[in-house]
Amino acid sequence: MSFFDAALKNERERVNDALRSLIAVLPASVRETAEYAVLGGGKRLRPMLLMTMVRAFGYNKADIYRIAAVPELFHVASLLHDDILDASDTRRGRQAAHLKFGVSASVLTGDALLAEACHVLAGYADPRMVSSIAEALVRTTGGEIAELSLAGRLLDGLDEYYDVIEGKTAWLLRSSCELGALLAGASEEETEAAGQYGLNLGYAFQIVDDALDFADNTGKPVGGDLRERKSTPPILLYAASLSGEKRAAFAEKFSGEGFSAQEIAAVTEAIRSGGFAEQARSLANEFLEKASFNLKKVPDGTAKFMLKEALAYARGRKN
Amino acid sequence: MSFFDAALKNERERVNDALRSLIAVLPASVRETAEYAVLGGGKRLRPMLLMTMVRAFGYNKADIYRIAAVPELFHVASLLHDDILDASDTRRGRQAAHLKFGVSASVLTGDALLAEACHVLAGYADPRMVSSIAEALVRTTGGEIAELSLAGRLLDGLDEYYDVIEGKTAWLLRSSCELGALLAGASEEETEAAGQYGLNLGYAFQIVDDALDFADNTGKPVGGDLRERKSTPPILLYAASLSGEKRAAFAEKFSGEGFSAQEIAAVTEAIRSGGFAEQARSLANEFLEKASFNLKKVPDGTAKFMLKEALAYARGRKN
Repeated sequence: MSFFDAALKNERERVNDALRSLIAVLPASVRETAEYAVLGGGKRLRPMLLMTMVRAFGYNKADIYRIAAVPELFHVASLLHDDILDASDTRRGRQAAHLKFGVSASVLTGDALLAEACHVLAGYADPRMVSSIAEALVRTTGGEIAELSLAGRLLDGLDEYYDVIEGKTAWLLRSSCELGALLAGASEEETEAAGQYGLNLGYAFQIVDDALDFADNTGKPVGGDLRERKSTPPILLYAASLSGEKRAAFAEKFSGEGFSAQEIAAVTEAIRSGGFAEQARSLANEFLEKASFNLKKVPDGTAKFMLKEALAYARGRKN
Repeated sequence: MSFFDAALKNERERVNDALRSLIAVLPASVRETAEYAVLGGGKRLRPMLLMTMVRAFGYNKADIYRIAAVPELFHVASLLHDDILDASDTRRGRQAAHLKFGVSASVLTGDALLAEACHVLAGYADPRMVSSIAEALVRTTGGEIAELSLAGRLLDGLDEYYDVIEGKTAWLLRSSCELGALLAGASEEETEAAGQYGLNLGYAFQIVDDALDFADNTGKPVGGDLRERKSTPPILLYAASLSGEKRAAFAEKFSGEGFSAQEIAAVTEAIRSGGFAEQARSLANEFLEKASFNLKKVPDGTAKFMLKEALAYARGRKN
């Protein structure tokens, strides 16, 4: 376990307390769905990044849990809507909210969490914070839109994949780090570096996440991206390893009728035994190196050490 | 036709141009749904209120169409999601977007419009504007939640109904007027009066809207609120007019199995011939009087005249 992992676990209850108190003000009829979606798990990576960045820039007060909860609320709101769009059955090892509470409850609870997050953020009266989150909202929705419009087509290369994950994941991590820097009163240059760190960490985090789709100890169903025909790095690397004819057949199936359960199992096995998930993980390293470089602008100290540990955590995580 | 109605028509194309240019930056795959939902009709009441309030407080530049489009984007985003939640078949006389483009497209396009609206607003870097909209987002979602949780139960009186429409409609009109006052640099007291004007106008607007559910020239299916078992004023006034036994039977049906098409037609006819829709409209008057009082804090001039005309427009509208 990395130090960052330990720090995540250590802070999780206080972050959850802040989330709980923000959910408590929601109307009764969405509260159950909100509690299920918000409190039913989650690493709290975004709050932890915000808090660590705040501390790295010298802000030492303990009143940061409420603002730290803001990007997590945006995150869960987007998960609630995404699970409808992707028709996902499970989330965090449990039944997806739209199956448990219905599509209406998921749409509405997502909207309510988003509104509440905007409301908390507005209380800080900092236009730069608002811009950061507004940009993240646009990018996150754009990433989901791109992912949906590209699903069912085997991409030619990684560039379009990177476009998708920048929006889907990296931008909100960028914003979490920016919010931390802004709250601490960091300079414009420092805030930019903090944001870039978050963005690069976000790329790496998602690449590893997509590699873990082929691991067997995550609590998630294996091969979900094959089933949903999302062109993630392990799949693209596997496809690139095939001979011309086999590759064409794979691409045709990927972009056409999709795969049977048997085929998913076979391709999953081939991806595992061929080491393509491990190869994909190594793609994350260049982003982690960039993120490490971005930290040069962050003052030295315990918090900065923890931000470095976050890179090790992203590289090494097993679920 | 009131002067306000004429002004709405006169400004509509410029507002639509601003909306069009904001939609144009959305990702291609949601643009079609966004165009359908945003440009397929709509009075542009919210933009017009914002613009008229801006002018009333002495701001005379022509660069107000972009910010005026912001509350309209929030409005359409909420309509897209509401039509899913209410399982509505039609909107503005056409097939509802979720039936034409699918639930996923409606969820996603609503999110994209909301994100874009936040993004434009963030560009103004005014924390009071952000607070106003954030509060409106919370209230609007809360109103929709309240409406859904109260649907299918005949309310005892108007108070709960007023709670619903405050969130569902009045608060975004309040915010539209506040944004106008803030953009023009109005004082805190003036901004509060502008917001209260919008809130009271919003109550009146929704009350008249609910009365129009029993008119036959709106292009909407008649008696939709009876079918969805929403306790609107004409329905509550009709129920109150029934003798004890008949009222109990009506309430039981309303809160129980609902009404057949034949029963909806019969109750609609009774509401019309009994003048309950007209009685309901008269409830709007007290809110319009309050709104008129709120205008005392607004400087005299052409724009203020137009804000008074907006009250006449709300009172008199036939669709």
